[in-house]
Amino acid sequence: MTEFGLIDYVAKLFQGVSHHGWESIGDDCTVLPIGGGEVLVVTTDMLQEGVHFLRHATSARELGGKSLAVNLSDVAAMGVKPVATLLSLALPAECCGEWAKEFVEGFHSLATEYDVALVGGDTTSSQSGVSINVVAIGRGRAECVKRRSAARVGDVVYVGGELGGSALGLKDILQGSVDSDYAALHRNPRPQVELGQWLGTRVEVHAMMDISDGLASDLCHILKLSHCGAQLEVNAIPAAEGNIETAVCGGEDYKLLFTVESDAAERFESEYREMFQQPIYNIGRITAADEPRICWSEDEVEIYPEWRGFTHF
Amino acid sequence: MTEFGLIDYVAKLFQGVSHHGWESIGDDCTVLPIGGGEVLVVTTDMLQEGVHFLRHATSARELGGKSLAVNLSDVAAMGVKPVATLLSLALPAECCGEWAKEFVEGFHSLATEYDVALVGGDTTSSQSGVSINVVAIGRGRAECVKRRSAARVGDVVYVGGELGGSALGLKDILQGSVDSDYAALHRNPRPQVELGQWLGTRVEVHAMMDISDGLASDLCHILKLSHCGAQLEVNAIPAAEGNIETAVCGGEDYKLLFTVESDAAERFESEYREMFQQPIYNIGRITAADEPRICWSEDEVEIYPEWRGFTHF
Repeated sequence: MTEFGLIDYVAKLFQGVSHHGWESIGDDCTVLPIGGGEVLVVTTDMLQEGVHFLRHATSARELGGKSLAVNLSDVAAMGVKPVATLLSLALPAECCGEWAKEFVEGFHSLATEYDVALVGGDTTSSQSGVSINVVAIGRGRAECVKRRSAARVGDVVYVGGELGGSALGLKDILQGSVDSDYAALHRNPRPQVELGQWLGTRVEVHAMMDISDGLASDLCHILKLSHCGAQLEVNAIPAAEGNIETAVCGGEDYKLLFTVESDAAERFESEYREMFQQPIYNIGRITAADEPRICWSEDEVEIYPEWRGFTHF
Repeated sequence: MTEFGLIDYVAKLFQGVSHHGWESIGDDCTVLPIGGGEVLVVTTDMLQEGVHFLRHATSARELGGKSLAVNLSDVAAMGVKPVATLLSLALPAECCGEWAKEFVEGFHSLATEYDVALVGGDTTSSQSGVSINVVAIGRGRAECVKRRSAARVGDVVYVGGELGGSALGLKDILQGSVDSDYAALHRNPRPQVELGQWLGTRVEVHAMMDISDGLASDLCHILKLSHCGAQLEVNAIPAAEGNIETAVCGGEDYKLLFTVESDAAERFESEYREMFQQPIYNIGRITAADEPRICWSEDEVEIYPEWRGFTHF
């Protein structure tokens, strides 16, 4: 059974159980309306030694920051402010002292920067490697919440920053260059929290998610839930080192991916530039399609690459 | 650094960060007032192969149930109804098929029984053993929430059922008797969800928590936060097989531990018996004390045992 097969199996099993007001699984976060026009959004991510990180290639402090960052990115992708987090740690004996302190200091440092409280957690010993589970909770106005299912035919597709840098950094690390700029980027991702909140307030922004498994894989989640396709121009993709395949298939970039009403796109772009003083990347269009498929073009000529994102099993 | 040393260190680090309305860490769950006189409560627990379970000694189905049960018990201990859960799973290759299906079926079966939705989660591969993280969320009236800090001098101390059975079961399992009744109890704990909700509605119930690390350890959390001591009568403790030390020090019983206003205790007991048709166990009193210490007596004669609960490191 694949990772997504298991998720589908679980979702089907639970169809008969009351949702108690929570929306169905399928977005970066689940949404709970709490009254007064407000919602909570909740997400969780597990990081496993040997799978998500190599202990010799990352400092405990960086790992603490990264484990929070990836969850804040999921909250940002919903268009609301992250407010709280829960941290579970399973630690082998050699990590219970200085390593654990540095880990929580890194976690705390990022939490302080983004004004996120630690409201719960669990600590336990481990007979094998380090396991980390983080929950992040956001709170905001119901009308700001952006969903994967909201893309419309004709929307412009944007990404919030350069892609592929994290994958290049992982490659550097695996080849022993742990000090390269990309390696540092891989270990210290910056969640686009401010951008996410701003996009949440814009009605012309339709669908949104964060890119964690690679553009090729993640955009398909939007297409599937929005019942549409996409046409992307590879030369418009902001690829680290100009490496398109890595930009499209590499994981862990944690940049926002979103679609904007085409009529409003020009004004949106100029207000974005004014607000953030950074470039914004228009990489293509949402199209009418029977299947959630991406059509790729290079200088407007169709191409047929075999690009897939990352799956765990 | 010990497990509780690390928790204290984290709590101190985060003192300066805004709580965004969440109460401080220290109870079975953290509490978030959400308006309309309602609260959400949230808890998380991590279960690690080789520490919390041995894969050859438990079925995947039982483990799925247990991993939810321990979290529902934490919500029950707050006096409110569990409504939602999130499940994170890190799985070695050999567990990605039938094992994973059976695990989520066991999880689903208990969730259905207690009417709890699955609203999020994560799945990943593991290079070592199985790691499980569960989050449980409860929702209820603010006035029903019971806290560890609410015990008052003179309160009667109660436990919701027999203690020590789970530890006896673990002993059986480690000695190879995986089919004993206590071994089954250890693998299939029953959270006292209905009892917790009923206790939540009773104003004479002051402090409450669930017993996961053993009575001797867990009662001290109530005493510390309530600034008092306790006097317990060992012959009143409902000990499985009459084994007092195991009842007091053994972990994973998941029975509720709570204190009741002494003037109301008699009426409380009779209404409890009428409601649940089960015995209730009055095991002692909350006392005035400078230190959060338990004084033990046997047939009203003071004794000085060296009883401690379980800590992970």
